[in-house]
Amino acid sequence: MSSSTGPQADTTCHPREHLTVTPSPEAFRMARADGNERLRSSGSLFESFFSLDGAAYGAGALPVSVKELLGLVVSVMKDCEECVYYHLERCDEERVAREQVLEALQIALVGGGSVTIPLLRRAISFMEELPTLGKGRA
Amino acid sequence: MSSSTGPQADTTCHPREHLTVTPSPEAFRMARADGNERLRSSGSLFESFFSLDGAAYGAGALPVSVKELLGLVVSVMKDCEECVYYHLERCDEERVAREQVLEALQIALVGGGSVTIPLLRRAISFMEELPTLGKGRA
Amino acid sequence: MSSSTGPQADTTCHPREHLTVTPSPEAFRMARADGNERLRSSGSLFESFFSLDGAAYGAGALPVSVKELLGLVVSVMKDCEECVYYHLERCDEERVAREQVLEALQIALVGGGSVTIPLLRRAISFMEELPTLGKGRA
Amino acid sequence: MSSSTGPQADTTCHPREHLTVTPSPEAFRMARADGNERLRSSGSLFESFFSLDGAAYGAGALPVSVKELLGLVVSVMKDCEECVYYHLERCDEERVAREQVLEALQIALVGGGSVTIPLLRRAISFMEELPTLGKGRA
Amino acid sequence: MSSSTGPQADTTCHPREHLTVTPSPEAFRMARADGNERLRSSGSLFESFFSLDGAAYGAGALPVSVKELLGLVVSVMKDCEECVYYHLERCDEERVAREQVLEALQIALVGGGSVTIPLLRRAISFMEELPTLGKGRA
Amino acid sequence: MSSSTGPQADTTCHPREHLTVTPSPEAFRMARADGNERLRSSGSLFESFFSLDGAAYGAGALPVSVKELLGLVVSVMKDCEECVYYHLERCDEERVAREQVLEALQIALVGGGSVTIPLLRRAISFMEELPTLGKGRA
Repeated sequence: MSSSTGPQADTTCHPREHLTVTPSPEAFRMARADGNERLRSSGSLFESFFSLDGAAYGAGALPVSVKELLGLVVSVMKDCEECVYYHLERCDEERVAREQVLEALQIALVGGGSVTIPLLRRAISFMEELPTLGKGRA
Repeated sequence: MSSSTGPQADTTCHPREHLTVTPSPEAFRMARADGNERLRSSGSLFESFFSLDGAAYGAGALPVSVKELLGLVVSVMKDCEECVYYHLERCDEERVAREQVLEALQIALVGGGSVTIPLLRRAISFMEELPTLGKGRA
Repeated sequence: MSSSTGPQADTTCHPREHLTVTPSPEAFRMARADGNERLRSSGSLFESFFSLDGAAYGAGALPVSVKELLGLVVSVMKDCEECVYYHLERCDEERVAREQVLEALQIALVGGGSVTIPLLRRAISFMEELPTLGKGRA
Repeated sequence: MSSSTGPQADTTCHPREHLTVTPSPEAFRMARADGNERLRSSGSLFESFFSLDGAAYGAGALPVSVKELLGLVVSVMKDCEECVYYHLERCDEERVAREQVLEALQIALVGGGSVTIPLLRRAISFMEELPTLGKGRA
Repeated sequence: MSSSTGPQADTTCHPREHLTVTPSPEAFRMARADGNERLRSSGSLFESFFSLDGAAYGAGALPVSVKELLGLVVSVMKDCEECVYYHLERCDEERVAREQVLEALQIALVGGGSVTIPLLRRAISFMEELPTLGKGRA
Repeated sequence: MSSSTGPQADTTCHPREHLTVTPSPEAFRMARADGNERLRSSGSLFESFFSLDGAAYGAGALPVSVKELLGLVVSVMKDCEECVYYHLERCDEERVAREQVLEALQIALVGGGSVTIPLLRRAISFMEELPTLGKGRA
């Protein structure tokens, strides 16, 4: 989706709209990388945790794509908005099919109930701007 | 700041203020409807879940107004900001008295502890703009 | 329900069965009172918290029966097994109808998702032994 | 593991041991089915929810085995002990490899932190008694 | 508010950036005080809860500085962004050392897992603007 | 308290009592060590996580005793019963004063609300059997 055509492209600006828009993948990626860098440089235990996290998501008995879907539902269950965006981006990079992502989100919805709906709304909105996952939308 | 224009009416804009303002009921309603529409159109299971959710809140042995209060405390306990706004709107539509909403929020506060306070602050702020619930404020 | 006829009355005894049975209302009540007494005597802040909790559930703009239903859904959303038993007992004392309790639990189920089901199973089982709420079962 | 040689087979019996043992798969299965039956018969909305839950786990764009792993991590993230046992049984039935289950649990551990460890201990213990997943242990 | 006057004075403005910035300590403090005032005036039980909360954090067998660190990890575990900012400010006022705050956050990270990382990123970012805790940064 | 006089010493045995008793420190310690050993031997990532967890609790800018109190409140906030017992044991070993533990629990209560009370009842009960922390009780 071109960033100049969607509701996100509205040039009017008001902080009250923070609930109704999702970050652009680019802005999110940069801010996340910047914040992680600051965490890593704040103590070796942070750095070690990031390494462990990376190891858990590496290829093994399960393919990376399945692990990213697992990370996605972990993120929804813990209501972690930025984690959801991150794993959606990773799913996009790993060429997980849109229908597979949606089925994982459905399991999260049934498992975690209607309180997950606001985060699912954002997940759908964020997906629409991703290169591969965004293509499937109507 | 004059309470007649409201902090929400401030036309100045900065994303850093996102913690200190609440969405307007109108903007929230539109964004919620739009996001729900996208979810519904993303798979029949989403649609079915919405139906089930709607059924749970219909009149039965409990009146709708009590069910909306139940939904309100569910939302606070799960720290679901948008769910809180939605159920406050529904309470407003069902003419639940301001004092009743406040007592429900007090049960949520005592049940969920001080970590619920930021969301309760927003709930109070959002209530102030609702047609009926907003009238009771000083 | 007579305690000599249900699955709970099984005289075989193994701690592995702890997931499959619910406490008797009497045993629960005594253990809860004993534990609360120890908490209260452990510091005045505990005592003050209990007072505040009691105040939140007293009659006000909302009747006590509605407040107990609110406490029930708070408890399910936080997966607090003993809290659920307590509020079920209180609902029983306040003569809340079985159908009303079930509708509140349905709202908790739809709100919190399938992960609430194990606790709902126990809630139903515990209800069966309560003087009033237990009568409605088939 | 023979059920007559492990710590679970201890014939001494004390409720204080409830933290240190896991239910047998058979006992768990029966108690779960019994409880679910009571829920289903308590109102049509419960029944509808079970149907929706079943639909989410059916084969689709994702294979059933992957969906069961998703359900497993959902369960760990929500600290739902019985849900974990259920999805482990389903993984066993679907012939998910032990190493795949362990990698899913590792993602849950890294995602949810050390507070998940007690439930992971039980998951490992429960797995040891399952027909297929139990075979891989040393 | 002129967008050119605060430390927040970044002139680019878009609500989509709400995930990537933290509020200024001053703006946060004012909004929090304003919201708390509205809660307090909404019912005596809210006021009583604030008193109890204040009492829990007063000096006793534990020094205030340790209590603020306890409040900080409570806040991270409950994903309460504003609570984190508040306790960071209190740690700053109590002259808790930056390294001590970081070690408390590491315990929260290991205890609560990778889903705490987005909030920890914000915590680090917020700390950088605090008078004492902000000095230690590179 | 002599283990032969309390409600825990009841030689009658029924799984329904599992809510009303706490494990003995010895039984808990053995079961925990056994379960952790099985986790560690189930994959190197589990082992690495345990190492990281151990590192977070080592002496640093904060003394070990404060870190154990932090771990205690982390555990209460996440409703992790076994984690609470573990950190109480560690507090006992580190000679944390009973009053200090109680103040940490009060912060957890106020922060997490009344849904923490059942776990706090067990914490008090478990403390009573610990060599040092158990001495202070009336």
